[in-house]
Amino acid sequence: MTPGGLGQVETQRVVLFSGDDPLVLESGATLAPVEVAYETYGELNADRSNAVFVCHALTGDAHAAGHHGDPARRGWWDRLIGPGRPIDTDRFFVIAPNLLGGCQGTTGPSDLDPATGRRRGLEFPMFSVRDLVTVHRRLLEHLGIERLHAAIGGSLGGMQALQWAIDDPQAMERCVPICASARLSAMNIAFSTVAREAIMRDPGFQGGAYHESGWGPNIGLAVARMMAHITYLSEDSFAHKFGRARRIEGAEPGLGPDFEVEHYLHHQGASFLERFDALSYLYLTRTMDYFEPFEEPGARDRLRGNSTRFLAVSFTSDWRFSAEHSAHIVRELHAGGCDARHVDIASPWGHDSFLLDVPEYHELVGSFLTA
Amino acid sequence: MTPGGLGQVETQRVVLFSGDDPLVLESGATLAPVEVAYETYGELNADRSNAVFVCHALTGDAHAAGHHGDPARRGWWDRLIGPGRPIDTDRFFVIAPNLLGGCQGTTGPSDLDPATGRRRGLEFPMFSVRDLVTVHRRLLEHLGIERLHAAIGGSLGGMQALQWAIDDPQAMERCVPICASARLSAMNIAFSTVAREAIMRDPGFQGGAYHESGWGPNIGLAVARMMAHITYLSEDSFAHKFGRARRIEGAEPGLGPDFEVEHYLHHQGASFLERFDALSYLYLTRTMDYFEPFEEPGARDRLRGNSTRFLAVSFTSDWRFSAEHSAHIVRELHAGGCDARHVDIASPWGHDSFLLDVPEYHELVGSFLTA
Repeated sequence: MTPGGLGQVETQRVVLFSGDDPLVLESGATLAPVEVAYETYGELNADRSNAVFVCHALTGDAHAAGHHGDPARRGWWDRLIGPGRPIDTDRFFVIAPNLLGGCQGTTGPSDLDPATGRRRGLEFPMFSVRDLVTVHRRLLEHLGIERLHAAIGGSLGGMQALQWAIDDPQAMERCVPICASARLSAMNIAFSTVAREAIMRDPGFQGGAYHESGWGPNIGLAVARMMAHITYLSEDSFAHKFGRARRIEGAEPGLGPDFEVEHYLHHQGASFLERFDALSYLYLTRTMDYFEPFEEPGARDRLRGNSTRFLAVSFTSDWRFSAEHSAHIVRELHAGGCDARHVDIASPWGHDSFLLDVPEYHELVGSFLTA
Repeated sequence: MTPGGLGQVETQRVVLFSGDDPLVLESGATLAPVEVAYETYGELNADRSNAVFVCHALTGDAHAAGHHGDPARRGWWDRLIGPGRPIDTDRFFVIAPNLLGGCQGTTGPSDLDPATGRRRGLEFPMFSVRDLVTVHRRLLEHLGIERLHAAIGGSLGGMQALQWAIDDPQAMERCVPICASARLSAMNIAFSTVAREAIMRDPGFQGGAYHESGWGPNIGLAVARMMAHITYLSEDSFAHKFGRARRIEGAEPGLGPDFEVEHYLHHQGASFLERFDALSYLYLTRTMDYFEPFEEPGARDRLRGNSTRFLAVSFTSDWRFSAEHSAHIVRELHAGGCDARHVDIASPWGHDSFLLDVPEYHELVGSFLTA
């Protein structure tokens, strides 16, 4: 970790939609109340023009940077956000909310429905990436900000930034989707559906009503996470990190964990259970499958006159959302007459590169945000 | 399917190891009885020199070609084996056994132990690729054949052929490992460990003693298969087969299967349960993880003077065992002074290419076996 960085930060919460003013989803369904957890870093300037909105990925949260008391345990994008960092909190006012449907402070399927006193479970309405953005826009209103300096995010985060910029040509000056996709491939969907099946077929899932039973789909969720985690790394990063090293060299062969990579994945599965909810995992992954903004009727026409500057970033070793996904985004934006650029950054770390110290990537983001 | 091909064939069974002559495994453990299911196609010639031994992959069986009564349902390698086909039954006597540890006629962990009257379950000893070959060699003895014209197999099948040729320089004239590996990568092991965890953590697994309970690890085994199946195809083959097609265009978004690729994977998972056993899956995948024949002490020296002709075949779109795995095999064989060639065949179908109609591949195998 680079020295410096933000100090202690706090998560705030605000109710953005309530009974007489519910969240109206793209499907027509309504939801209330909707509370949002968010953090902010840096200071909003006098003309309210320096806001950078950070959209998190599938399993992220509002705690993007700084720490909550233990300086060694820092937010998920602390490498990018802080004084002098690419998303420079000496210049920018950074806003990082937890997503609708999430499980870390923002209303999601595992929260109580005040109308019934029960958790919503599978009665929580399906929502879209556009619905995630509707909540972001309301948060921005709440903060008194009309226009963003930029919206930025990796993976599902980049999808939100992209949807937002497409839907509202006035919303932001810059849009930075990083290792995102505007159209998941069949193989992308395949990995997600297997993860969801592992969860939903787990007897502990109980049709989504697992919260009060003291028993949940922990097996399925851990298996889903272990599998997904493989797809976030690259063959090279696995080889570099683990090779064929065994925890105990010369141990008796057996079916349990033996190779270091197995112990690592077990740990990934177990620690995920501490911080993530199965229903949020189902809903948020599904939101990605259906995301296809350029295929909507009139999508290309709506881009005409959009003055947002787009930078799509991909990583050479990312096979979950390869460079072709970013190239596709930029092709579509160009076809709509937009100012858009695609940079494919050399990095051996796969999809997870967007979270890691990749100097060329950090420089690119930093200079794009200040140019 | 090419017209022609073998007619009706029969699976035979033979007890190759019994109480007074047990199978002695590489670990020192013993196992008896060991019964082997196998099929043969074509005729053994007078000097017993035309035998081609087919080693199957993880979930294969002894029924490699022809049919068992319904000409539309043919063996797993029927495209390659038959009159006038690359493994030409007009010229060769083809032997195809089910593997030790399997579940389709050869002794495996889910079979009864006659000594106890119980199924062995997790008391079945761990075995190695070399142990698979020990059983193959005994089958060959039983058939009265001293030397093979060739041993051939894809994936785990190729590993057996390779181990056999390395261990016994007199065993065969030709060895054809296809999309095999002599050293699984950390990512390879990662996929396998997640599949095994899905099975072993399934409450239905019951520590391996699931057979008599009427309840088994069906959820885990289906999830394992669905995930593994993704790794057998390529991104392109998924795109070509399914794209983003939905079963019902315009259906309400939901968490259940909707995209065609999801229905396909569900079917793959469900149909696998009809034909495969969870314990066999655990043992056979683990055998692959530990396979590392060139790292054994003195391995390179043992290759000196080995006159086997090796052909390692890989497929350009195979990302489970990429061309680099075959290249590694051939580098090691060359370092040992062996006659070895690697051909990387252009094919869009991923790891599964070894089962499919890829003309250049068929021609290559056919000409190598007759040259």
